[in-house]
Amino acid sequence: MKVVKFGGSSLASGKQIEKVFQIVQSDSQRKVIVVSAPGKRFATDDKVTDLLIECAEQCLLNNDPLELVEMVIERYTSIAVELQLPSEVVKEIENDLAGRLAGDRSKPKQFVELVKASGEDNHAKLVAAYFQKQGVEAHYVNPKDAGLFVSADPGNAQVLQESYELLYSLRERSGILIFPGFFGYSKEGDVYTFSRSGSDVTGSILANGLKVDLYENFTDVDAVYSVNPSIVSQPKEVKELTYREMRELSYAGFTVLHDEALVPAFKAGIPVQIKNTNNPSAPGTKIVSERDNANGPVIGIASDQGFCSIYVSKYLMNREVGFGRKLLAILESFGLSYEHIPSGIDDISIILRESQFNPLMEKEIKRRIEAELHTDEVVIEHGLALIMVVGEGMRHNIGTTARASKALANANVNIEMINQGSSEVSMMFGVKEIDEKRAVWALYEEFFAAVTV
Amino acid sequence: MKVVKFGGSSLASGKQIEKVFQIVQSDSQRKVIVVSAPGKRFATDDKVTDLLIECAEQCLLNNDPLELVEMVIERYTSIAVELQLPSEVVKEIENDLAGRLAGDRSKPKQFVELVKASGEDNHAKLVAAYFQKQGVEAHYVNPKDAGLFVSADPGNAQVLQESYELLYSLRERSGILIFPGFFGYSKEGDVYTFSRSGSDVTGSILANGLKVDLYENFTDVDAVYSVNPSIVSQPKEVKELTYREMRELSYAGFTVLHDEALVPAFKAGIPVQIKNTNNPSAPGTKIVSERDNANGPVIGIASDQGFCSIYVSKYLMNREVGFGRKLLAILESFGLSYEHIPSGIDDISIILRESQFNPLMEKEIKRRIEAELHTDEVVIEHGLALIMVVGEGMRHNIGTTARASKALANANVNIEMINQGSSEVSMMFGVKEIDEKRAVWALYEEFFAAVTV
Repeated sequence: MKVVKFGGSSLASGKQIEKVFQIVQSDSQRKVIVVSAPGKRFATDDKVTDLLIECAEQCLLNNDPLELVEMVIERYTSIAVELQLPSEVVKEIENDLAGRLAGDRSKPKQFVELVKASGEDNHAKLVAAYFQKQGVEAHYVNPKDAGLFVSADPGNAQVLQESYELLYSLRERSGILIFPGFFGYSKEGDVYTFSRSGSDVTGSILANGLKVDLYENFTDVDAVYSVNPSIVSQPKEVKELTYREMRELSYAGFTVLHDEALVPAFKAGIPVQIKNTNNPSAPGTKIVSERDNANGPVIGIASDQGFCSIYVSKYLMNREVGFGRKLLAILESFGLSYEHIPSGIDDISIILRESQFNPLMEKEIKRRIEAELHTDEVVIEHGLALIMVVGEGMRHNIGTTARASKALANANVNIEMINQGSSEVSMMFGVKEIDEKRAVWALYEEFFAAVTV
Repeated sequence: MKVVKFGGSSLASGKQIEKVFQIVQSDSQRKVIVVSAPGKRFATDDKVTDLLIECAEQCLLNNDPLELVEMVIERYTSIAVELQLPSEVVKEIENDLAGRLAGDRSKPKQFVELVKASGEDNHAKLVAAYFQKQGVEAHYVNPKDAGLFVSADPGNAQVLQESYELLYSLRERSGILIFPGFFGYSKEGDVYTFSRSGSDVTGSILANGLKVDLYENFTDVDAVYSVNPSIVSQPKEVKELTYREMRELSYAGFTVLHDEALVPAFKAGIPVQIKNTNNPSAPGTKIVSERDNANGPVIGIASDQGFCSIYVSKYLMNREVGFGRKLLAILESFGLSYEHIPSGIDDISIILRESQFNPLMEKEIKRRIEAELHTDEVVIEHGLALIMVVGEGMRHNIGTTARASKALANANVNIEMINQGSSEVSMMFGVKEIDEKRAVWALYEEFFAAVTV
C-alpha cells in the first residue's frame, strides 16, 4: 500500500488532475491520495490558499472579500468545467466557503485557520467527484472522521500521538481514499493547519498511521538535485538519500519538500519517494533511513545567502565561565536565533540570518554586548553565504575536508568559516556572498562533474 | 632602557647568578632586573616557592615547619656561599622569613601570600648584594615603595591602573634596580601575588610603567619553538611572533611564558624578547604587536590532549530559540568551562577539558540535558586532542586550510572537528588522542620542514 501526495501545481488545472488520475490508476498500491489546494498554473498565478488567507484577513477587517471569493470559486469552476463535472460540485464548494466566511470571528486565528483549510478540503471533494465520474470507487475522507487529531496551535499544529492508531483503521476502507492535506482537528473539533506546505505533513502522518510501504510525494521536479539548479545547470539528480541528508540540504531552502514533513515517516521508518507529476516514469528520489555509500562521500551541496556574523573578542575570554552563555542570552533577548558559533580562544563569532536584523537593532546589540560583557571588540559583518557539503559518513571520511578546501582554494575563494565536527552528515563553509556561486561550482566539480556554463 | 626578567632556573645557583651578572653587564640598557625565587637546579629539585607554600600551609595546620624552613634557608645559604657573600645576607633572609611565619594567621589566605612572596623578595635582596659586591651600583627596590599596587585578590592579584604612572618615576633612580617579581601591595599595605609564574607579570608591568624599549625575558630555552620539542625533535625556532600568536600557542600549555603576563606590555606596545640565560648570544624570540608575514602563513603548531566532546542532537533544534543558551547554562551550573561549540543544524557538540569531569558528573550532566532539553541523543566522547595551527593573517590566506587538511588526510588522520572562522590567527583541528603525534608531524612537515625521527 502507498500513500500518494500531490502538490498544488500537480492539481492546479483539469489537465493536471487528469495526469494525477492516470498516475493513481497505473499502480493498484496507490490507495490513499493526499490532495493540496489548487496551486499555480503559471509563474504569476495565484495559489488558492493565498487567496483564501486574504479573504479571511479582509473579513477580519470588516471588508467584503467579494472579488477574492469570486477568484477562488473561479479556480474550482474552471477545473470542474475542464473535467466536465456536474455543477453541484462547485455549488457545494461555494456554499462551504460562504459558510466558513460567515462563521464566528470572535477568535480571529481560528477563523483564519478554518478558511485557509478550505482550499484542500474542497479540492479533495472535487478530486473524489472526478474519480467517481471516471467510474473508480473513490471516497473523500474527512480528517476528523479519520481521527487526524492535532494540537490547537494555529498555523503550527502538531499531530497528537493517538491519531496514528486511529488512522490505521483506514486500511479497512474500500476504494481509493481522497484525503485533504494541510489540516487536522483539535479534540474540541476545531480546524488547525500545519505550517505552510503542510500537505507534505499530512502525507507523512498518513504513511505512518497506515504503516504503508512507501510514501510517494508528487511534485513538479524530477528529483532532488545534488545542487541548486539555478547555480549549476543540469545538475546530477540524487537517486537516494537519507532523512538526515535531506534535512541538511533543506536547510538552504532549495528543497522540494517541507522538511518537518518527514518526521512522522522518519519515525516509522517509511521511505519517501519524490516524483514528478509531469514525468511520472522518471525514477525520482528516494528518501530512506539508511543507504549504501557506494557513490562517494558527498550526496549534495546546499547554499544560502543572507547571513552575517557578530564577532566578539575579549582577552582571556577563554577563562570566563559563562561568557558564551551570557552572550547567547543577550541575543535571545532580541528574539534572535543563531546558526553557528565558531570560536577561538579569546574570540567568538555568532553566525545569524541577516533578515532578523535592522540597523537600529544592530546598534543596540553591539552596545549591550560591549556594556554587559566588557569586550575588547564587537564587529558585525554582513554578506555571508553558507555552503553545506552533505553526505552520510562525512565525518569519518578521511580526505573530504582536504578535497573541499583545495577546490575552494583553487577557485580563489577565501574560507571565512568552517563548521565541522558536530554533524555526522555535513560540513559547512562560510564564504562571502560574492564568492558563493564560484564556491559551489568548485565543490560541484570536485565531487560530481564538470560544470556546464 | 630595558627591563630584564630572570626565571627561577636562571637564578637557582651561584653559577647561574654569575651568568646573570655577565648578561646584565654586557648591555648598559639593562637597567631594571626582575628576580624570581630560586628555581630548580636539576629535574627533581624543589622550587623555593613550593617549599614556602608548604611552610605556610603547615603553619596553618599548627605544625612546626622547621625542616622546610631549613631547606629554604639552605638554598639561599648555598648560593651565598658560592657567591662569597657576607653572612649578614642570609641572616637577614632568615630573620625576614621567621618574621613572616610568626605573623598574623587570622586571615589564612593573606598569611600564605606573605610567606609565598618571600621567595622573590629575599632573592632580590641577595642578588642586589652580589651586584654590589662586584662593585656595581645596584639597589633592591621594594614594590610598595615603587608604587606597584594591586587588587586584594590572593593568588590572582591584578595591577591597579595608577601603578603605571608611579612606576615611571623609577627611571630617575641611578644604578641598576633589582626588583622582586611575583607580588605587589594592596592600597592597605598587604602583600598579594600574581598567578603562578607571576614574575613574568611583574616584568611586563614594569616594562609598561617605565615605558622601556624592550622587555627581555630570560629563561632556560633558546626560543619559542614552532612546535612542541617533545613531539618534533629540533623544531624550527620562531624568530618573531605577535602577542596574539603567542597567546594562541600558549593555549596548549607548552609555552615558555605565562600568557597573561603579556597584557601590560601588550597594552603599551612594548616588544618582549625571550632569551636563554645559558645561551645569551642566541637571538631568541621577539614578541611584537605586528610583524611582517614574510615566512608563510603558519608561525607555529600547538597541541594538547585531554579533551572530550558532549554531542547533543534534537530534530529541529535549529528552530528552538534559546536552545544553545540553555545547554550552556546547564554546563555552567556544573562549573564547567568549554572550549568550542561546533554545531550542525540539528546537533551541537561542546568540546571541554576532560579534567573537569568525573563519571558521576558525566551521568548527571547527561541526565539533565536529556530531561530539560528533550533531546534525541546525548553522547559523551573522550580522548580528543586539539591542534592549533597559528599565524597572523591565516583567516584570509587562501589555501592554508587545504594544505593543512590534505596533510592530515595523507597521514591518514581523521579530522573529528574543525574550528575556523572566529580567530584571525588560528585554526583548530580536533583529532583522536592516538592520532595527535602523527597529525602534528604531518602539519609540521607541510608548513615547516621534514620531521627528523
